[in-house]
Amino acid sequence: MAKEITPRAEDYSAWYLDIVKKAQLADNSAVRGCMVIKPTGYAIWENMRDALDRMFKDTGHVNAYFPLFVPKSLFEAEEKNAEGFAKECAVVTHYRLKADTEHKGKLIVDPAAKLEEELVVRPTSEAIIWNTYRDWIQSYRDLPLLINQWANVVRWEMRTRPFLRTAEFLWQEGHTAHATSEEAREETVRMLNVYADFAENFMAMPVIKGVKTESERFAGAEDTYCIEALMQDGKALQAGTSHFLGQNFAKAFEVKYLNSQNQQEYVWATSWGVSTRLIGGLIMTHSDDDGLVLPPRLAPLQVVIVPIPTTGDVVDGVANSILDNLKSRGIRAKYDTDDTKRSGFKFAEYEMRGVPVRIAIGKRDIENNTVEVARRDTKEKTVISMNSVVEYVVNLLEEIQQNLFNRAKQYRDEHITNVDTFDEFKNVLETKGGFISAHWDGTPETEEAIKDATKATIRCIPLDNPQEQGVCVYSGKPSAQRVLFAKAY
Amino acid sequence: MAKEITPRAEDYSAWYLDIVKKAQLADNSAVRGCMVIKPTGYAIWENMRDALDRMFKDTGHVNAYFPLFVPKSLFEAEEKNAEGFAKECAVVTHYRLKADTEHKGKLIVDPAAKLEEELVVRPTSEAIIWNTYRDWIQSYRDLPLLINQWANVVRWEMRTRPFLRTAEFLWQEGHTAHATSEEAREETVRMLNVYADFAENFMAMPVIKGVKTESERFAGAEDTYCIEALMQDGKALQAGTSHFLGQNFAKAFEVKYLNSQNQQEYVWATSWGVSTRLIGGLIMTHSDDDGLVLPPRLAPLQVVIVPIPTTGDVVDGVANSILDNLKSRGIRAKYDTDDTKRSGFKFAEYEMRGVPVRIAIGKRDIENNTVEVARRDTKEKTVISMNSVVEYVVNLLEEIQQNLFNRAKQYRDEHITNVDTFDEFKNVLETKGGFISAHWDGTPETEEAIKDATKATIRCIPLDNPQEQGVCVYSGKPSAQRVLFAKAY
Repeated sequence: MAKEITPRAEDYSAWYLDIVKKAQLADNSAVRGCMVIKPTGYAIWENMRDALDRMFKDTGHVNAYFPLFVPKSLFEAEEKNAEGFAKECAVVTHYRLKADTEHKGKLIVDPAAKLEEELVVRPTSEAIIWNTYRDWIQSYRDLPLLINQWANVVRWEMRTRPFLRTAEFLWQEGHTAHATSEEAREETVRMLNVYADFAENFMAMPVIKGVKTESERFAGAEDTYCIEALMQDGKALQAGTSHFLGQNFAKAFEVKYLNSQNQQEYVWATSWGVSTRLIGGLIMTHSDDDGLVLPPRLAPLQVVIVPIPTTGDVVDGVANSILDNLKSRGIRAKYDTDDTKRSGFKFAEYEMRGVPVRIAIGKRDIENNTVEVARRDTKEKTVISMNSVVEYVVNLLEEIQQNLFNRAKQYRDEHITNVDTFDEFKNVLETKGGFISAHWDGTPETEEAIKDATKATIRCIPLDNPQEQGVCVYSGKPSAQRVLFAKAY
Repeated sequence: MAKEITPRAEDYSAWYLDIVKKAQLADNSAVRGCMVIKPTGYAIWENMRDALDRMFKDTGHVNAYFPLFVPKSLFEAEEKNAEGFAKECAVVTHYRLKADTEHKGKLIVDPAAKLEEELVVRPTSEAIIWNTYRDWIQSYRDLPLLINQWANVVRWEMRTRPFLRTAEFLWQEGHTAHATSEEAREETVRMLNVYADFAENFMAMPVIKGVKTESERFAGAEDTYCIEALMQDGKALQAGTSHFLGQNFAKAFEVKYLNSQNQQEYVWATSWGVSTRLIGGLIMTHSDDDGLVLPPRLAPLQVVIVPIPTTGDVVDGVANSILDNLKSRGIRAKYDTDDTKRSGFKFAEYEMRGVPVRIAIGKRDIENNTVEVARRDTKEKTVISMNSVVEYVVNLLEEIQQNLFNRAKQYRDEHITNVDTFDEFKNVLETKGGFISAHWDGTPETEEAIKDATKATIRCIPLDNPQEQGVCVYSGKPSAQRVLFAKAY
């Protein structure tokens, strides 16, 4: 089974698609650019959602739900936002089909059911939400308003790839309103920190927190903060963004509040989101040529018990006892009693699917009162006494979680390279990849020129970036700090 | 505050809208027929979703996610289903907007970005899902396939009402595939029972399980099972449906499996769903002229502690201690420390919002070592010793849950009336309302004639309906059983 995966060294992109397919995470659909998220992929998303949702609630946010459709006149109200998304909007123009009189059994769009105003399928919800907030916010007592939404959004992408870039995707979008600029900025950074915490502690994916340059900013934002991760092929992945929106949406939708001095003021805004794209990041941070590798905290199945060669009263008894004990410790575990497949086949299958820990129990194990425990991350196997296996596995899951993070962090840290000339820049980008830390003169023109020449973009200006005098790697003009470049997904 | 609600006796429909608005459950939106689900309304939905999701998983189902859009050619493949939904489909015809050269800052649909094939926004997902199942199902080993999806769907309704009938709504839709007709029928009934269990034990809403007549059947189903509830105004609410789809979708999408005798057979299907409509049912089962009444198991906030007249060291100490104890018992509780509102105002507000239990603590209570506990369902107040209040409240929540169910069941049972003449039928319908149990000759013509004459429809033929010879209340023709009629939402 593992043989069917293209090795990473041969073709990273083909490897990625193989993992998505063989680990049963997603499927193509009949709709251009839209994927079907299969049960295993969706179970990972559920675990992500539950963890994030808890973190949002712990920071004072509540969930709500706003309409899928945005009337065109609202969509265009905040001009930069509208301009940024106009090119990738699915548009509903009619509300009825009718029988095609020329082709029996076929339907056509009923021209009589044309909408007076077209509806945009939300690519993001600032417009519809801020149009609603106008009614919800009157006074400073209504602030801050801290709302999150779990939803599907649609962006008509021309080149798609499962999880990483799809026409429809699932995400959460936080939309908050504040009395002051300071509070809104604090919120923007607070949620960036929540994302970084989630990425590192649940996904075991180290991230760099930073701020985007103007040209990479969210359409309609004053500042876009981001977390950037590094994939195994040396390309960066923008894993989450948190936007300080200033008063742009408040002005576009006339959202004012009465401050404590009885004066009308425009409200300050933030928005922040992560999406099913994170699953792509998870795959490309940890997995290997044998299949998916999942951090235990997000793995739908954490431990599988496989009998060798087959089930039977004695093996069943031991396996079920271990299973019950693992479950009582809150571990997601299963005993595989399918006698139609050989254990070797099962081993490969569970490796492919990224189950963090496998326990094998054979007849000799029963005699010796032992089991064999294999960990997915390092492929190491250890023989453990039956009496201590549950405790061992509980600790092992934590160790795997930590090891995956450490491994990814070491790789990431080794792939941040300081360069001081443009030749070195190009050379490192082509041979080693990863993040390139280089001086930049701060102009969009230089940023664009570097992108045209190398396909590398400025991923972010790291937060708390050390200030250091230097000269721009491209223009030779003075620069006060290094920024991080990379090719990106 | 409570004064602002229209009394039920005056105008039930206005009362319903008042509750939705004053209890902050939902808002109208800028999109025709689409609502905004506000945080309190969404928190109820989250509680419903979590409880149902657990029940689905306990019965062997897994979640997945399928595309929002259905290409027209797939949509029309199962003809009855397509015909049933064609009249209420939102249709995406274009994938891009562009600047309107005649009106600065405005956008128009880009005519160059017309889709070759229109996309229907899913009104239900049988088509897109069965088109996918063709690839997932080859052999009997792939069956049963037990998948559920939590999603938004769109049905272009002309007359809408928050929760009860909206253009976009949230729901879950289960779609299962089976090797035999018997298994599929068993699944259909199993999920009907899950819905009934949920309605009665979480929503405290008694339901009648039954099967729909042909004319009320889901488009594309062989049989539609349903749970029917009775609202306070004597109208019925279809609260959930479970469909036996036979081989209709398997044939439309060519989904076959190799059986154990190595023969190709069409797969058997079910689908089942409940939606945010349940929140409408919840409101109309329990609430009163003072506001929302919620069963404790679904209430976002179960207990509120209100200080009288204000907070202070001593009251805070007692309140926080009770709060911590309640939380440690898994109860969703809050201590209201807002000193800008008077306690009387708060009492009315929490009644309006349906918080099941209120604990009031005043200075005299501190002296007497007591607190006052008020229950929302009966409005009774009891003075309780501080030492036993946590235990008392834990039990009280269970008692309220049970009382709400009993009260609703008594009302429902008193509103099932056997009638034997059409005059009596009309009279009971107009004066008493509720379910009318009457003989029916089994023909769609009679069903239609009764509907035209009275607006009452056959809600269901109850499962395990006693067989009883009689004559049709309308046509006088022979009938073997009574069926349940009602006016319905």
